[in-house]
Amino acid sequence: MSHNTFGHLFRFTTWGESHGPAIGCVVDGCPPRIALSEADIQYWLDRRRPGQSRFTTQRREPDRVRILSGVFEGETIGTPIGMVVENEDARSGDYEEIKDKFRPGHAEFTYQRKYGIRDYRGGGRSSARETAMRVAAGSIARKILGPSITIRGAMIQMGPHRIDRESWDWDAIEDNPFWCPDRAMAERWEGYLATVRKQQSSTGAVIEVVASGVPPGLGAPVYGKLDADLAGAMMGINAVKGVEIGAGMGAAELSGEENVDEMRMKDGEVEFLSNNAGGTLGGISSGQDVVVRFAVKPTSSISKPLKTVNVQGEEVDIATLGRHDPCVGIRAVPVGEAMMACVLADHLLRHRAQCG
Amino acid sequence: MSHNTFGHLFRFTTWGESHGPAIGCVVDGCPPRIALSEADIQYWLDRRRPGQSRFTTQRREPDRVRILSGVFEGETIGTPIGMVVENEDARSGDYEEIKDKFRPGHAEFTYQRKYGIRDYRGGGRSSARETAMRVAAGSIARKILGPSITIRGAMIQMGPHRIDRESWDWDAIEDNPFWCPDRAMAERWEGYLATVRKQQSSTGAVIEVVASGVPPGLGAPVYGKLDADLAGAMMGINAVKGVEIGAGMGAAELSGEENVDEMRMKDGEVEFLSNNAGGTLGGISSGQDVVVRFAVKPTSSISKPLKTVNVQGEEVDIATLGRHDPCVGIRAVPVGEAMMACVLADHLLRHRAQCG
Amino acid sequence: MSHNTFGHLFRFTTWGESHGPAIGCVVDGCPPRIALSEADIQYWLDRRRPGQSRFTTQRREPDRVRILSGVFEGETIGTPIGMVVENEDARSGDYEEIKDKFRPGHAEFTYQRKYGIRDYRGGGRSSARETAMRVAAGSIARKILGPSITIRGAMIQMGPHRIDRESWDWDAIEDNPFWCPDRAMAERWEGYLATVRKQQSSTGAVIEVVASGVPPGLGAPVYGKLDADLAGAMMGINAVKGVEIGAGMGAAELSGEENVDEMRMKDGEVEFLSNNAGGTLGGISSGQDVVVRFAVKPTSSISKPLKTVNVQGEEVDIATLGRHDPCVGIRAVPVGEAMMACVLADHLLRHRAQCG
Amino acid sequence: MSHNTFGHLFRFTTWGESHGPAIGCVVDGCPPRIALSEADIQYWLDRRRPGQSRFTTQRREPDRVRILSGVFEGETIGTPIGMVVENEDARSGDYEEIKDKFRPGHAEFTYQRKYGIRDYRGGGRSSARETAMRVAAGSIARKILGPSITIRGAMIQMGPHRIDRESWDWDAIEDNPFWCPDRAMAERWEGYLATVRKQQSSTGAVIEVVASGVPPGLGAPVYGKLDADLAGAMMGINAVKGVEIGAGMGAAELSGEENVDEMRMKDGEVEFLSNNAGGTLGGISSGQDVVVRFAVKPTSSISKPLKTVNVQGEEVDIATLGRHDPCVGIRAVPVGEAMMACVLADHLLRHRAQCG
Repeated sequence: MSHNTFGHLFRFTTWGESHGPAIGCVVDGCPPRIALSEADIQYWLDRRRPGQSRFTTQRREPDRVRILSGVFEGETIGTPIGMVVENEDARSGDYEEIKDKFRPGHAEFTYQRKYGIRDYRGGGRSSARETAMRVAAGSIARKILGPSITIRGAMIQMGPHRIDRESWDWDAIEDNPFWCPDRAMAERWEGYLATVRKQQSSTGAVIEVVASGVPPGLGAPVYGKLDADLAGAMMGINAVKGVEIGAGMGAAELSGEENVDEMRMKDGEVEFLSNNAGGTLGGISSGQDVVVRFAVKPTSSISKPLKTVNVQGEEVDIATLGRHDPCVGIRAVPVGEAMMACVLADHLLRHRAQCG
Repeated sequence: MSHNTFGHLFRFTTWGESHGPAIGCVVDGCPPRIALSEADIQYWLDRRRPGQSRFTTQRREPDRVRILSGVFEGETIGTPIGMVVENEDARSGDYEEIKDKFRPGHAEFTYQRKYGIRDYRGGGRSSARETAMRVAAGSIARKILGPSITIRGAMIQMGPHRIDRESWDWDAIEDNPFWCPDRAMAERWEGYLATVRKQQSSTGAVIEVVASGVPPGLGAPVYGKLDADLAGAMMGINAVKGVEIGAGMGAAELSGEENVDEMRMKDGEVEFLSNNAGGTLGGISSGQDVVVRFAVKPTSSISKPLKTVNVQGEEVDIATLGRHDPCVGIRAVPVGEAMMACVLADHLLRHRAQCG
Repeated sequence: MSHNTFGHLFRFTTWGESHGPAIGCVVDGCPPRIALSEADIQYWLDRRRPGQSRFTTQRREPDRVRILSGVFEGETIGTPIGMVVENEDARSGDYEEIKDKFRPGHAEFTYQRKYGIRDYRGGGRSSARETAMRVAAGSIARKILGPSITIRGAMIQMGPHRIDRESWDWDAIEDNPFWCPDRAMAERWEGYLATVRKQQSSTGAVIEVVASGVPPGLGAPVYGKLDADLAGAMMGINAVKGVEIGAGMGAAELSGEENVDEMRMKDGEVEFLSNNAGGTLGGISSGQDVVVRFAVKPTSSISKPLKTVNVQGEEVDIATLGRHDPCVGIRAVPVGEAMMACVLADHLLRHRAQCG
Repeated sequence: MSHNTFGHLFRFTTWGESHGPAIGCVVDGCPPRIALSEADIQYWLDRRRPGQSRFTTQRREPDRVRILSGVFEGETIGTPIGMVVENEDARSGDYEEIKDKFRPGHAEFTYQRKYGIRDYRGGGRSSARETAMRVAAGSIARKILGPSITIRGAMIQMGPHRIDRESWDWDAIEDNPFWCPDRAMAERWEGYLATVRKQQSSTGAVIEVVASGVPPGLGAPVYGKLDADLAGAMMGINAVKGVEIGAGMGAAELSGEENVDEMRMKDGEVEFLSNNAGGTLGGISSGQDVVVRFAVKPTSSISKPLKTVNVQGEEVDIATLGRHDPCVGIRAVPVGEAMMACVLADHLLRHRAQCG
């Protein structure tokens, strides 16, 4: 049992506060003889890195990862992989105002109540900065999964604006700053988000992560279910408030015959005629695409003044003027992908352990 | 790491197949000197028990629990609490037809692919029968939480029919077979469900579970978050496809100022002006009601014939004529309550360990 | 984390008090499609069963095991294996005297101080009766290990009397009630133990367990070492006070050149010229025999009066007149074998998970 | 489950190879608001540090620890404590010869067989260098235990030379390079060790670690026993081959009345008349001193040529000419203390969780 460790056999532990000297991650249980370099990890970190468009926080972190152990002559050796990223652009000065005030929607109030102390600089441990290490771990998980399993994330809703699923084009996500698979909607979001920012407000989003090529058999009854682990993984990402597998919350409105995924044979293989299950049956992967969606709440730090209290128990107002994303959901896309990769890699090893 | 164990400090392990001789549960980590009798557990089992109305399966299981260890002279003694429930109404004959056919929407296909073998009788390990033991564990968790924490579940949507939240009355849930807190809607559901059954179909549902009186401070960064553990717990219940905390998926559509829960002081205590967070901030309880919702898919076993394949790889049709619920969501209400209780009890002990 | 669960991937949880209605065990993580029957388990339970000679307790327990889940049509199906053994010969009346008095050398004092309550009948949870379930789990572990791995235990010392290792004959252990591999010594022990009993005393013992055929590679740095797990497993057996691997405590007296196991080639395979390491290097099996020894203290319950205190804090004397073994080490032999099997099975699965 | 994590609630994960850029440790679960500085940790690291006398390896590592997270304004904040120590004196050149040869008594052979790859420089992950991070973790564990619990280690045997327990003087251990509590014996060891080195040989040792002031109640039945966890912890230290609690292996030779620790009352408290149990009964601390001993094998790297094989499967000889300790047991003393502290801190939190 650990508060800061994720996974069972593919397992990573992260540490670090937003404005401490560094953040880090230890990946344990990685199989040996996998080719791995810092560049492999950096590629994915760069995709998550803030400051890349005008729609994400302007904190400028190079997020340069160093591998300090577990890799020798370009290959994993089965021992723990220690990684560190320095915090370079930690302007502590920006955060003096929140030393005493609890920002609504942030974890400061609960940290203070739980621990009786907190690192108030930039959210401390509760900052989304920690998610960089999830992406680092996820990049190693992808190596374990190998090229036959593809994991891709997309933003499918921003505020009230949902993509047209008929227009889904995976190639489009590289062409806009929103990971949006619907080119027309990406343009619309650009305008929408500009307005949101102008209004000193923020907006929520929905992310969808799809894993293709997952073999049947991953996951286990009844408290090691693949979908349950995915739900925990996604809900644990900062600001996530809902998680869906396959038909998700909408399954409630379906009839049995609408919802059930019928089966036929095709080329000697079982073929499902739909995928409302989202790739799992009884908590075990079926071979279909594993489809997870999650909702990210709007950024709580907005420039409009909000009612709050301070540590002295006085009623005060607070407005956040620092560097913040109007839609934190954007940066959650690579994090969701990483968590999908980590859950699948863990279950791949768990399945191999029990079933050979 | 275990496939069939839930929790860390308050921890239970379940075993048993639907049509084996018995199912059971071992609860470990329970604090000593808590008054506990079989009647305490039986009360909650009886609430979940099928066959109590015409809207749930007619399998008639008395679900009589026996405590075999861990309790002495009416009190827990700190050692593991072993519990067993005999399977009495296991009519294996009913299930001969599914020995070879994979029922769509059920776990038979994935169990067969994972293990190369399965107990085909009544779903075996993947049957919702296992949830009886979650309710048993949950009843002990409630004892640990004590009378100041109240956990209540309600069905808030059946098929497309949602309750009117303005009409919410907790007392109403005891007066209808649906745990529905909206008396008018309960009547409407009765007619709707009769129609669904007549059409040989089934329908989905949404359940909401609310825990009141939870002290601030439960949960921990960053992979021991209360909301992440709740999401995993609820998604792990049979047939659940989506989980929400607080504003849930709807948070995506809100603006920052709509979503954020502002704070004021009241009688010397911090008061939140809304509860879109669902009682957690940064994964730690805030003292507000902890609010979780989950969607249950419609029963996959329907009387209409469905396309499927058999173990020999042949295309066949299947219609389920046995005893099944038209809306499995009904019986998920006490299970959702139980999982909430177990997650909270676990986090209560975890918090006490670290923070005293 | 659990108090009553052993292992990680091959994992068992036991429950039950000495004089409760039953004891039980849940084995989780067992690979599917392994042939398993109650008779397979009963064979090993019978070897451990008390009351088989005049040198072990006269408590007469048939120890009849029932498998309640996880096995279908003679094979494991990958789900948890629930097992129960009824307590039939639990004469609670014998234990009224110890309701208030703490027996020296027993766990009653510490249970009372820890939990503030205890089941005083026959030692409750701390009774060696629990070890029956370790043997049950171990019998399943042996099935996982397969016929190429042999695990055998022997008693090599009783009181001050050590066997002559030159006379070691594995066949001999079936021919005497002590699992003694030295026929001459077995005879001597018989006389010695008769004297010990006549003196109303008891005596300690040393057990050696040897696993042959263990492939190289089991165990992992640095907190998943095979020898560390074995040490924890053996020290956790009731009454064990010391554990040795290979040369054990005696390694302290050796010089580097005496202790080190040199290597040569033989028939294309690496051959070690000695086995002071006891089959592990750096916590990983080397392919040599895995050799563990442990010391069992003399039975604390003796007929001579001993000084103690009662729960009221008064000084009293106590003499144990019930059914007790003059040398509990005898019954520890099959338990040591079982723990060896469980540790190896767990590491076999762990190794397969990481290294394929 | 993790290979490189120790503990459950007080829990640390280490990473790093002997000749990689750095080694590190993440301590998770530490209670908040404990005063902690780098100097607190450095104090204990300095005691373990090699190169301090002519009897330990001449590798000169300043072992300067940096705390990178989890501490804010001089206090722990409940989040993971990341620590790093740079490897400064890693002369890789020394190790070219062992690139292909397996050093007898070292882990190279088993690492190669397990992983198919290894970092051959200085033992890689299997090097005792890793133990520096155990000492770092142990220093934090001591803070949790507080001043009322004292943990002290001593070397009580070197080769065949055992101390006279009547001459035990805790103050003496600071006055000689061996942590020897018997001043006369310390002098004798000095001569003995000089001879051992002259003979190009090495020698084993026995260490005793004593924890005083441990409250009754720590540890739990039946797989969370304090003594079992201590045995695993000590056996997991590099080169340890035997572990004893209290009377240890010698308990086998005692009679029941000699071994049992009788009880009387003294000043209203229970007093034990002896401590053969070593401070635990039924796996739970009794309030007496917790006494653990372990044997460390002689250094396997000696200057005399030894028979071995190389990775090509050829028979070769090897003589280790590098910097090595003639008695690695010396440096194991602070490591044993650290592991005792970590086990106790973990059990203190575990006890608090369950029993309040």
